[in-house]
Formats: sequence, C-alpha cells, structure tokens
Amino acid sequence: MKKSQNETLHELFLTKLQSLLDIENQITQALPKLVKKASSPMLKEAFSEHLEETRAQANKLTQIFESLGERPTKLKSEGIRGITADAEWVMQNISSPESLDAALIAAAQYVEHYEIAGYGTAKEWAKLMGHNKEAEILNEILQEEKAANKKLNQLAIKEINKKVKSGIEL
Amino acid sequence: MKKSQNETLHELFLTKLQSLLDIENQITQALPKLVKKASSPMLKEAFSEHLEETRAQANKLTQIFESLGERPTKLKSEGIRGITADAEWVMQNISSPESLDAALIAAAQYVEHYEIAGYGTAKEWAKLMGHNKEAEILNEILQEEKAANKKLNQLAIKEINKKVKSGIEL
Repeated sequence: MKKSQNETLHELFLTKLQSLLDIENQITQALPKLVKKASSPMLKEAFSEHLEETRAQANKLTQIFESLGERPTKLKSEGIRGITADAEWVMQNISSPESLDAALIAAAQYVEHYEIAGYGTAKEWAKLMGHNKEAEILNEILQEEKAANKKLNQLAIKEINKKVKSGIEL
Repeated sequence: MKKSQNETLHELFLTKLQSLLDIENQITQALPKLVKKASSPMLKEAFSEHLEETRAQANKLTQIFESLGERPTKLKSEGIRGITADAEWVMQNISSPESLDAALIAAAQYVEHYEIAGYGTAKEWAKLMGHNKEAEILNEILQEEKAANKKLNQLAIKEINKKVKSGIEL
C-alpha cells in the first residue's frame, strides 16, 4: 500500500474510502467468473445482479471523493485479494456442479460480510465528521451488501445446500 | 492450499473446518500485536479477552474433528492472511494513538465479520448433515464472534471514534 498520512479522522476516512474502491474494483473483476462457474440459474442471476450493483457502488464511491473535493489514490486491499484468491481455489478444485455452487455461495458470503464491516466503519466515520450526505450514500451501499448477503443465505438454505446434500445420498 | 476431494457435502464441510482452524490460528498470532499496539485500556482488554476466546475456539474446532473421527490437514486461508496483512499495514503506518485505536477496531471488525460468514456456513452444513452436536458448537462460536463484533462496535461508537475526532478539533 502507498504510504500516506493517517493521523486525523479525515485522513483515516479517505484511506478507508480508497480501500473500499479497490475492494469494489476487485469484486467487479471476480464476479464474472462466479457467474460463469455457477450452475443454478438462480445463483447465476444473483451473482449477475450483484455485479451490476457492485459497478454502481464503485461509482457512488467515486462521487463521494468528488463531493469531498478529493481524489482517490491507488491503495491495495490485501484482504479482498486473499478472499478472492480463496474463491479462485474453490473454482479450480471443485468439479461437481452442486458442490461448486455451495462453495461459491460460501465464498461470496465471505465477500459480503467483509464489505459489511468496511462500510459500517466508513458510514460511522462520515457521520461523526458531519458528512451527512456521504454517510447516507455509504449507508445505502451497506444496506445493499446486507441484502445481497441475505439473498445468498436464503438461496443456500432453501436450494443449493439441499442439492449438494442429496448428491451424497444417491 | 492442499489439493483434496471436495465433491460431497462432508468433504466440503471438512475443508471449511480446516480453513476455520487456520483462521483461528492466524488470529491467535495476530492478536497479541493488537493488544500491544492499542492505547485505550478498554480496547486492550477487549483484544486480550478475544485472544483467550480465539484459543478456546481453535480447541473446539479440534474437538469437532475428533468427534467426526477425522484429522485436520493443513489448509491455508488466503483470506485471513490478507486481512491480517492489512492490519499489519495499519500498525506500521499510523502513529497517533487515537487514530491507531480507531483503525485497529476497524481492522478487527473485518476479522469478526469474516469469521461470522465462515461459521454461518459451517453451522448450516453441519445441521444439514445431522451433525447436531457439532452444529451446536459451531453456533456457539458464531454467537461469540457476533458478540465480539458488537462489543468492538459499541467501543468504537461510544469511545474510540470520538477521541480521534476531538484530536482533529484541537
């Protein structure tokens, strides 16, 4: 990561936003592979919809930088790189379609929860500094991530996990 | 990661448990640095308590392997390695104690949310296979991670974030 000043809440907040932007960009790169590898049409659709949402979230972050009169500098989140590397491992090491779907949902839920933590912090910091408009946008993204996670959870419990289980019993 | 079979739900479940064990071990290595670097006595205590809890969670996972008649093989989670690498970056790049505390909480909340996702999946898979005792232990750990996250959240909002904010206004 680039060395920068992180001594005031404003500076911490900018670093967090830069890292969230990198996270969204990494997810935008990873999701098309998940769409391709998923077998369940409902799962394919969920990943596909979330790809669109992720692109919009990256735009929202860029707008926040503009409204703050700041420019995003490059900053690498090692966290999202590790999480997507594990998702790559899943795609390379699981061949049964039912098992792969279950493992892809698990990998995507790691991503969603990771983002929920990031946006939770960013929203609180924005609020604390009186950046109400920015806090509102960050909260909007936070709610989208929570909804995406919930959707994946329901899909896993109601459909995907049962299919992989019935595979064992055959 | 070691190449292994991941074609049945049982195999997926074992892989998930191995990865969770690696995650707990990585956190056990990382937390003492956070305890040392935190300035707020309440934050120091929160990290310290969670270190004990994390050690106990690793033991619980080992017991699950035993009760299933299985042995954990080594499996590296790149996700937790990335997340702890970002926490290292925070410790090396932030010098103001108030800012560092706020950033350490943010880093620890990434860890907690990541674990919440992992244990959520593991618990569901255990339940589905009728491993009720194991599902109960996994749910116990899941609730501990949720409680740890909630505690960090309250500490951030009620104490730590306000201190770093007042630093700016001086």
